[in-house]
Amino acid sequence: MRMVIGNGYSFERKTQRVTIWNEYIHERTNPQVAAVYPQGIHSALVQGLQPYGFLMRTAVLDQPEQGLSQEVLEETDVLIWWGHLAHDRITDEAVDRIQARVLQGMGLIVLHSGHRSRIFRRLMGTTCDLKWREDGRRERLWVVDPSHPITEGIGEYFELEHEEMYGEFFDVPPPEKLVLISWFPGGEVFRSGCEYTRGLGKIFYFRPGHESFPTYYNKNVLRVIANAVHYVGSAHGTAPVYGETKALEP
Amino acid sequence: MRMVIGNGYSFERKTQRVTIWNEYIHERTNPQVAAVYPQGIHSALVQGLQPYGFLMRTAVLDQPEQGLSQEVLEETDVLIWWGHLAHDRITDEAVDRIQARVLQGMGLIVLHSGHRSRIFRRLMGTTCDLKWREDGRRERLWVVDPSHPITEGIGEYFELEHEEMYGEFFDVPPPEKLVLISWFPGGEVFRSGCEYTRGLGKIFYFRPGHESFPTYYNKNVLRVIANAVHYVGSAHGTAPVYGETKALEP
Amino acid sequence: MRMVIGNGYSFERKTQRVTIWNEYIHERTNPQVAAVYPQGIHSALVQGLQPYGFLMRTAVLDQPEQGLSQEVLEETDVLIWWGHLAHDRITDEAVDRIQARVLQGMGLIVLHSGHRSRIFRRLMGTTCDLKWREDGRRERLWVVDPSHPITEGIGEYFELEHEEMYGEFFDVPPPEKLVLISWFPGGEVFRSGCEYTRGLGKIFYFRPGHESFPTYYNKNVLRVIANAVHYVGSAHGTAPVYGETKALEP
Amino acid sequence: MRMVIGNGYSFERKTQRVTIWNEYIHERTNPQVAAVYPQGIHSALVQGLQPYGFLMRTAVLDQPEQGLSQEVLEETDVLIWWGHLAHDRITDEAVDRIQARVLQGMGLIVLHSGHRSRIFRRLMGTTCDLKWREDGRRERLWVVDPSHPITEGIGEYFELEHEEMYGEFFDVPPPEKLVLISWFPGGEVFRSGCEYTRGLGKIFYFRPGHESFPTYYNKNVLRVIANAVHYVGSAHGTAPVYGETKALEP
Repeated sequence: MRMVIGNGYSFERKTQRVTIWNEYIHERTNPQVAAVYPQGIHSALVQGLQPYGFLMRTAVLDQPEQGLSQEVLEETDVLIWWGHLAHDRITDEAVDRIQARVLQGMGLIVLHSGHRSRIFRRLMGTTCDLKWREDGRRERLWVVDPSHPITEGIGEYFELEHEEMYGEFFDVPPPEKLVLISWFPGGEVFRSGCEYTRGLGKIFYFRPGHESFPTYYNKNVLRVIANAVHYVGSAHGTAPVYGETKALEP
Repeated sequence: MRMVIGNGYSFERKTQRVTIWNEYIHERTNPQVAAVYPQGIHSALVQGLQPYGFLMRTAVLDQPEQGLSQEVLEETDVLIWWGHLAHDRITDEAVDRIQARVLQGMGLIVLHSGHRSRIFRRLMGTTCDLKWREDGRRERLWVVDPSHPITEGIGEYFELEHEEMYGEFFDVPPPEKLVLISWFPGGEVFRSGCEYTRGLGKIFYFRPGHESFPTYYNKNVLRVIANAVHYVGSAHGTAPVYGETKALEP
Repeated sequence: MRMVIGNGYSFERKTQRVTIWNEYIHERTNPQVAAVYPQGIHSALVQGLQPYGFLMRTAVLDQPEQGLSQEVLEETDVLIWWGHLAHDRITDEAVDRIQARVLQGMGLIVLHSGHRSRIFRRLMGTTCDLKWREDGRRERLWVVDPSHPITEGIGEYFELEHEEMYGEFFDVPPPEKLVLISWFPGGEVFRSGCEYTRGLGKIFYFRPGHESFPTYYNKNVLRVIANAVHYVGSAHGTAPVYGETKALEP
Repeated sequence: MRMVIGNGYSFERKTQRVTIWNEYIHERTNPQVAAVYPQGIHSALVQGLQPYGFLMRTAVLDQPEQGLSQEVLEETDVLIWWGHLAHDRITDEAVDRIQARVLQGMGLIVLHSGHRSRIFRRLMGTTCDLKWREDGRRERLWVVDPSHPITEGIGEYFELEHEEMYGEFFDVPPPEKLVLISWFPGGEVFRSGCEYTRGLGKIFYFRPGHESFPTYYNKNVLRVIANAVHYVGSAHGTAPVYGETKALEP
């Protein structure tokens, strides 16, 4: 039962409608990756997020309209994005549609190599470049903003035994809230949990998730993503009116 | 029924335990104010926030330990603060207790003349001074961050027919998120909705609420406060450990 | 005489090389505008900024490469941008070139209707839309960050007798530093002085400057622009290396 | 020769008047520290900063008024602070005086263990606690905001062979600009270069500088401090008027 009082206020936590987009290439072409994610990263995420009660669907590059038609986007509260090899195959029209939906309030979670996706670069205004090294060593993610809801339930830090390294400088605008910083044994640091807003939309970039490591089975990684779904999918204000306008009462 | 899955995650929107603190002097000493808030500003807020389903209690200056014992604070998720005449009567011990609880994660909403309260100045590190004029003219509050959950349900702007003016420069650190800017017919502007974090705690300063005007009966004002309760009362991370520490595994 | 010590440090204030870009259409097609800026807005700015000792050049839309060849950009420390009617005539190549130079450290000052320029939208990742009204009434700009060097010498606020109104919501990312808020008699407010960074570059958006009003002869407006030249043209760090990288010493 | 044009604008880079405050205890009581800083950390800083042309003076705890009389503060553009053992010996009056001067525009650079100084905690509103370990291993400081003037001349990162470790969570408000992040071989990260503003004043916290290591002889450390002197000592706006005020012209 959903109780609603005046002004549209609801007592219940919203059931987030989540669309998990994956380019889904590595898993079908690289046996090593297929061994880790036999049904694709998107399916692993659906399975891992199941306990959190979201209404989930998946979308992949090879689908019509690259899986992200206007209809799908309009039925999406939060879009999760994983891409790596095929950023350039996303059409201008798709990037335009997704950007418009973010500005209207759709939440966006960009994972790992999605840092170079066209939609993230479009929303950031920068190259989103970084340093990297595929050495499969440890990553330790430190919480630097424990007031942030995205940090609930993950402790002061958590570790991934095997990950790709990403290092600074990460060419993004300064995060509006910086939530996590990664430590790598090879000597680098990285801003790994970054909040942004664009228009009515909230965006979270979350670093881990190289395709050849079982990162998306890790309970802390899944918890961060679930927390982020609630955060970027949370309420927003009214769509503004732009253009010529009359004077108001003094 | 409260369903909880591993890692402490709950499906339900948390029932926020709210303590509304009011110095409660104007309403007992000034007939004009008593006419507007016969039971005190705190009681008007309890009544106005009733539909939102919070677990509310009130506290006033004249109570033992100024209404805010350690026990009360520990049972409080969100503290709402209204004060004006008696900021200096709050003891060092009370300020210390409240600050410690904010750093541990208690949400804090500071209303109107609470800008000069000892607890707000303590948390800001500045004088929190401003310009003011009690002319009872219009205030128009514009949303400048419609991505923020605190702006849900209030439109692009809302108005109060009669309010005190507060003008810039407002001597606070730059808000981490600036949500509302007020326009006043006498020529001033003011940063009226300001988010801060301190430790694990989230803080929201909300400007309106002069004691001689019926501001806390306004539905938009109440909606902002209710939204802010959920926002500053939302989840946070783990309490950090400080001090000497051993090296971790590479 | 320029004294330099080790590490590239110089004692002198840098002589900023400023390129003032203007689309230069209104002034040649609208007699009312021509009456205010007979030689164009760019020439008025050159004249007004003369006392500040910058090394200035101008560039306009009708020049080859739209006045902004790679050579010009490389010799520019700070680019000032005024455009309104012809945003869409700026080519993709020009936008790419300018963005790349900003990311490499060139300062950018975007004036008034330049909010809708392709380069500003590219760098912001949003529509940069807003409300407007050409009523030629007063604008009062309040300083809300007096710690900012851009506010030197302009007092607590300053006024323009006749300006176009711009109103919120202004669809830009939250400014990294919000310096000025405008008050308009018709009831609106606007974030009028906004600092951003992108890569090594610093950006300042400054609202005033409608083509039919003598705004760019106002000494406070000129002072803000001169301060902003020094600010966005100030030192930056080293160009980062991106891509695959070897582990460093532990 | 100093040329000045209307509106108080000067062509020259300001000669910063710097006061270096040191509690000066370790160096007189611990032979190991005395071996590194025989004349005290303050004297090493004076010597190291000599090439930058500042007008420097030193102040130490044992002087009358703890070295920071009203007169000294009024003649100071930038105050540099090193303290560790004797934070509690700073009187309320001294903390009040320093805070007031920061709010009026004096720059403040807080070094290393100064994180726990009364003045820094007063200005931050938090405990400023952190993790630490005196293991004397490497520190590598990464630039995460290369647009920031404080990063000029230090490369993408720089290293200190022997330093104390400081680890997150660092209980400070989120920096308004985060400039440097430290990597430590024992597995921690730290926000090592943090900009804040309070009133008209600019503040920079800079992590390195344990008393038993020769950190303040390192040319990159000195360059950061010199850059920071110019940054926090740079221009600011007009002192605001607070209190009751008349309506302005519409």
